[in-house]
Amino acid sequence: MPCLSHRSMMLSTISVRALNCYLEFAERTEQNYQQEMRIAHFVVKEPMVIGHECAGVIEEVGSGVTHLAAGDRVALEPGISCWRCRHCKGGRYNLCADMKFFATPPMHGSLANQIVHPADLCFKLPDGVSLEEGAMCEPLSVGVHACRRAGVGPETAVLIMGAGPIGLVSLLAARAFGAPRVAIVDVDEHRLAVARSMGADAAVRISARPEDAAEEVARVQAALGGAEIDVSLDCAGFSKTLATALEATRPGGRVCLVGMGHNEMTVPLTSAAIREVDVVGIFRYKDTWPLCIEFLRSGKVDVKPLITHRFGFSQREVEEAFEVSARGRDAIKVMFNL
Amino acid sequence: MPCLSHRSMMLSTISVRALNCYLEFAERTEQNYQQEMRIAHFVVKEPMVIGHECAGVIEEVGSGVTHLAAGDRVALEPGISCWRCRHCKGGRYNLCADMKFFATPPMHGSLANQIVHPADLCFKLPDGVSLEEGAMCEPLSVGVHACRRAGVGPETAVLIMGAGPIGLVSLLAARAFGAPRVAIVDVDEHRLAVARSMGADAAVRISARPEDAAEEVARVQAALGGAEIDVSLDCAGFSKTLATALEATRPGGRVCLVGMGHNEMTVPLTSAAIREVDVVGIFRYKDTWPLCIEFLRSGKVDVKPLITHRFGFSQREVEEAFEVSARGRDAIKVMFNL
Amino acid sequence: MPCLSHRSMMLSTISVRALNCYLEFAERTEQNYQQEMRIAHFVVKEPMVIGHECAGVIEEVGSGVTHLAAGDRVALEPGISCWRCRHCKGGRYNLCADMKFFATPPMHGSLANQIVHPADLCFKLPDGVSLEEGAMCEPLSVGVHACRRAGVGPETAVLIMGAGPIGLVSLLAARAFGAPRVAIVDVDEHRLAVARSMGADAAVRISARPEDAAEEVARVQAALGGAEIDVSLDCAGFSKTLATALEATRPGGRVCLVGMGHNEMTVPLTSAAIREVDVVGIFRYKDTWPLCIEFLRSGKVDVKPLITHRFGFSQREVEEAFEVSARGRDAIKVMFNL
Amino acid sequence: MPCLSHRSMMLSTISVRALNCYLEFAERTEQNYQQEMRIAHFVVKEPMVIGHECAGVIEEVGSGVTHLAAGDRVALEPGISCWRCRHCKGGRYNLCADMKFFATPPMHGSLANQIVHPADLCFKLPDGVSLEEGAMCEPLSVGVHACRRAGVGPETAVLIMGAGPIGLVSLLAARAFGAPRVAIVDVDEHRLAVARSMGADAAVRISARPEDAAEEVARVQAALGGAEIDVSLDCAGFSKTLATALEATRPGGRVCLVGMGHNEMTVPLTSAAIREVDVVGIFRYKDTWPLCIEFLRSGKVDVKPLITHRFGFSQREVEEAFEVSARGRDAIKVMFNL
Repeated sequence: MPCLSHRSMMLSTISVRALNCYLEFAERTEQNYQQEMRIAHFVVKEPMVIGHECAGVIEEVGSGVTHLAAGDRVALEPGISCWRCRHCKGGRYNLCADMKFFATPPMHGSLANQIVHPADLCFKLPDGVSLEEGAMCEPLSVGVHACRRAGVGPETAVLIMGAGPIGLVSLLAARAFGAPRVAIVDVDEHRLAVARSMGADAAVRISARPEDAAEEVARVQAALGGAEIDVSLDCAGFSKTLATALEATRPGGRVCLVGMGHNEMTVPLTSAAIREVDVVGIFRYKDTWPLCIEFLRSGKVDVKPLITHRFGFSQREVEEAFEVSARGRDAIKVMFNL
Repeated sequence: MPCLSHRSMMLSTISVRALNCYLEFAERTEQNYQQEMRIAHFVVKEPMVIGHECAGVIEEVGSGVTHLAAGDRVALEPGISCWRCRHCKGGRYNLCADMKFFATPPMHGSLANQIVHPADLCFKLPDGVSLEEGAMCEPLSVGVHACRRAGVGPETAVLIMGAGPIGLVSLLAARAFGAPRVAIVDVDEHRLAVARSMGADAAVRISARPEDAAEEVARVQAALGGAEIDVSLDCAGFSKTLATALEATRPGGRVCLVGMGHNEMTVPLTSAAIREVDVVGIFRYKDTWPLCIEFLRSGKVDVKPLITHRFGFSQREVEEAFEVSARGRDAIKVMFNL
Repeated sequence: MPCLSHRSMMLSTISVRALNCYLEFAERTEQNYQQEMRIAHFVVKEPMVIGHECAGVIEEVGSGVTHLAAGDRVALEPGISCWRCRHCKGGRYNLCADMKFFATPPMHGSLANQIVHPADLCFKLPDGVSLEEGAMCEPLSVGVHACRRAGVGPETAVLIMGAGPIGLVSLLAARAFGAPRVAIVDVDEHRLAVARSMGADAAVRISARPEDAAEEVARVQAALGGAEIDVSLDCAGFSKTLATALEATRPGGRVCLVGMGHNEMTVPLTSAAIREVDVVGIFRYKDTWPLCIEFLRSGKVDVKPLITHRFGFSQREVEEAFEVSARGRDAIKVMFNL
Repeated sequence: MPCLSHRSMMLSTISVRALNCYLEFAERTEQNYQQEMRIAHFVVKEPMVIGHECAGVIEEVGSGVTHLAAGDRVALEPGISCWRCRHCKGGRYNLCADMKFFATPPMHGSLANQIVHPADLCFKLPDGVSLEEGAMCEPLSVGVHACRRAGVGPETAVLIMGAGPIGLVSLLAARAFGAPRVAIVDVDEHRLAVARSMGADAAVRISARPEDAAEEVARVQAALGGAEIDVSLDCAGFSKTLATALEATRPGGRVCLVGMGHNEMTVPLTSAAIREVDVVGIFRYKDTWPLCIEFLRSGKVDVKPLITHRFGFSQREVEEAFEVSARGRDAIKVMFNL
């Protein structure tokens, strides 16, 4: 079972007794670590705690911390950036090359009983927001950051490619940003049903075959009552889905690449470019916790339907949890409660 | 020889005795009309005048025109938009679906002795700016619009892919927008020499082979003294050039797709997206004539080196001009003077 | 009774059988015309129809109009801009110096049985939206434009100065743009009660005395639970209200000047400037009808509580309506139905 | 003579042997400290070193510093922000409430032989840029930040109110940002002559009397050849100057309040607001050193004419320097060389 190596307590850090969640889509990254012991140039050389979505109760605060106290319930933002580079100083600290991030070697993750973390990355939860919801700020942040970068608001009809966990948090975020209409597409009818129950105006089943793209674009537009699609969020990240997103988006609109199915994409980029459809991407998130907590407080976002399984934190339960999560599609989010 | 079909004079139009220019890269489009009688869904069904880059002297103004008079020298913006759609009302009239544009069927082009055109698309040239320079506002507008969309300014080092005519006007525009350093790459040493003489800080020869991209990115960065590349303008538009542009651009930077070599692109888009390198495109230009004229007036841009050949407007000379232009690379811009 | 001078029907215009509304705050402008026969440099030299907020049923369409037909119910945007100046071309057509606007001499207003108007300024109402609500798009547009210019969204707590009709439409708009908290202040307890019933989180009574500003800022912040105020909309426009707005807004926030109580303002502008609190203003609105109609369709905005009185369109009823409107505060909006 | 209290050396700090400059306008703030021992809520309780504009040669670097080494010449950014608040994280660290700044109690200033300072606030000077020029990055930063906030670029004609030191650095910055035309006004003919020699297109003498504003606006516009003024930078900060700036700026333009003559301003703000002339302010600067150094390297900005006097760093010379600086207008910048 994961255990946290000791870290010394500094002035501005706090110690948190943690509740963790474990989202199916997080697995894609962290299963890599489990199975292959590496992702890209990050190599796991010694035992490493995984996990990066958590909330908890403060046990102790450093002497310089004034805005939090023991007993406070907090959600944790997982990345510690350098605050010296151009990205940090320019307000895009998520691009910091020296970021230390939960469960990215050599930094341990959050799937532990106790975590020591900088106080400014611990965000107090208001009374009506549970620890479980607090832990969901991390995946929700992905949707929030995507919506911000894509400029989602009350004037943008949104198309979401993919109704997996990232697609669903993007759906929740797009709604909370005021998108008047949101359509979502997927190859899987079960996922579409979940998306419908979470507020999608239209949920359209598509195929994985590239040759169907043009016809599917027409079906999506019809499903939105003929409304133009101002923004597309590709939460799958395959050539087929991105091509559909590019074709479906109106001139002057925006496509945000959120998912990472392929790296090399083969897509009709020039025909999008000459319609001035911009393509933007995201790397994690920045400055999203306060907004996520506000969305949860006000009820604009309800993350509870995403939590499909709950486990304790014993050796046996943790193992079972990973099996459930790996098995498949009915698990959206698996939560560990201490 | 091209001749203009009669168009009636309306209140707000003016009649211009025209000087035209004919740029190598314009040909790509208009040679299509000459040779295949179609581009995409635009089909040439009856004889059509080509040309869309021109300046001239006003012969007559409509009774509602007050800011121009016969004898004024003007540069002509070629597109007439509808002013009723969301794009026109929202300040992006270049995206108007009902745009009427010189030499796009069924509208005749500007390669004629006389043109009747809306007065608000005719821009007066100041004393120090020649008709030839005025005609160059059109190609320069492509570079200006690309720089605007890519956010080029005093804080953005720029990489330009391709030193053909579009690359060269983009180089001129990037300089005029204050880019502190501009590197340009091409496969052709002659083009690079031209680019160097027009102010590129670095001109790097690259190959067309995809497998060389990584090494070429390193060479370009070295040529800029290790400066990060904030913006790349891909003025070629092939998978290879776009891939290089994406890889070379710093996290949080921007790539503008200007050229149109391929439609379907195979590029490492995801690895760009997770560095939040945005990809934007351009469709023609909007609101660029006043700025182009200001650049010419102040001397910030010198377009004269781009004018490589001059012809009269007789049958024989026009034919010769087209041959010169089609033959190849030493012709950048061919100018017709009446 | 107002009657419409005959206007010829052009290709792109439509004729509308109109329903009008008449908002208390519109009066400030138009009562001037009624009483003094001038506003600023606009002088009423011959009988002029007033009114600029209306919706109606189409009677006839010009031959070039394809997106509307007789019988359609439409809301009318009142201003016709030139589409030739820099403002029109740059997407800020509300700043057009040649704007022709309902009830601004020499153009007649909309308080008439029949109006001939450009088709692109007539916006079709969906089934669930009544003509009365359609007429309310005009005042609502003021709030929408203010929210856009001030950057109101899910991350901006909003303070509104003044709970008169403009303050109320701004409140509705701020809510629809997703503002998490909205406080409103006024000197009048009745107005505050109306604001509370329309969704203000906090409604605070203040005085007109400048010396109370600092203490009132503290009370407003307390009423918002200590939340920082990101955006203030001054819908009154007096030195006192603007000073309070400037002081109350957090560093880096925005104040939008919507109301026009004073022209010459005496306010602590420097202390706002060194906190980088920006001050922006609005002139009417632009591109707001589609969004207003979407807000009405989706129920995000409910304008019905603003309609306090209804009259027919006989001589006697019109006279009575003007009296009711002039008398005072219980009339927010007076509606004429044909 | 000022001397630096000992500060311990940390991992990421460097020790700099300093060259300082002392600008007339800096005095306004720091003379307050000298004479009244307080500014606003900042009270000088014990001897404090003043000065905040300096460059120097590195003597020693902390063990964690890799990008700089002893012997490097660097310019120093004077403010150390907290990197924990919303402003720091959002890219506007100049608004940080916990900023520690040279010569703002209780932090000592830079007018000392030796300074220990965070390495990320020390910017290496390229070979062609002198220490004196490096010290000028601080005042130049004010102009740069003003131009950024006001959106100055190749498409904005600029009006500058006041030709004192702030006006002059703003003039230099506006030129470097590509402003096509810059007009400057002042009450003093000598200052205007300096401004003319530094590149102002028009330098217009005005009075301090409010009643002359309208006529002066007309004269300024005439001096710019009738060009519209897109941006005004009020570097004086009095009601009269701000009123003139507001009136002179075109609809949709921007006024940046840079100077701080008055706090309470009496100005026609509503008539500016209804032309959508935005008013923005600045607090110091952020992220400006790299750009300033690039401007100096490339020669786009020449700060040398601003350095009017040079002194050594003996007791006698320092006293004389302060006298010269206090005496008056012919001293723009007084430089101390060790």
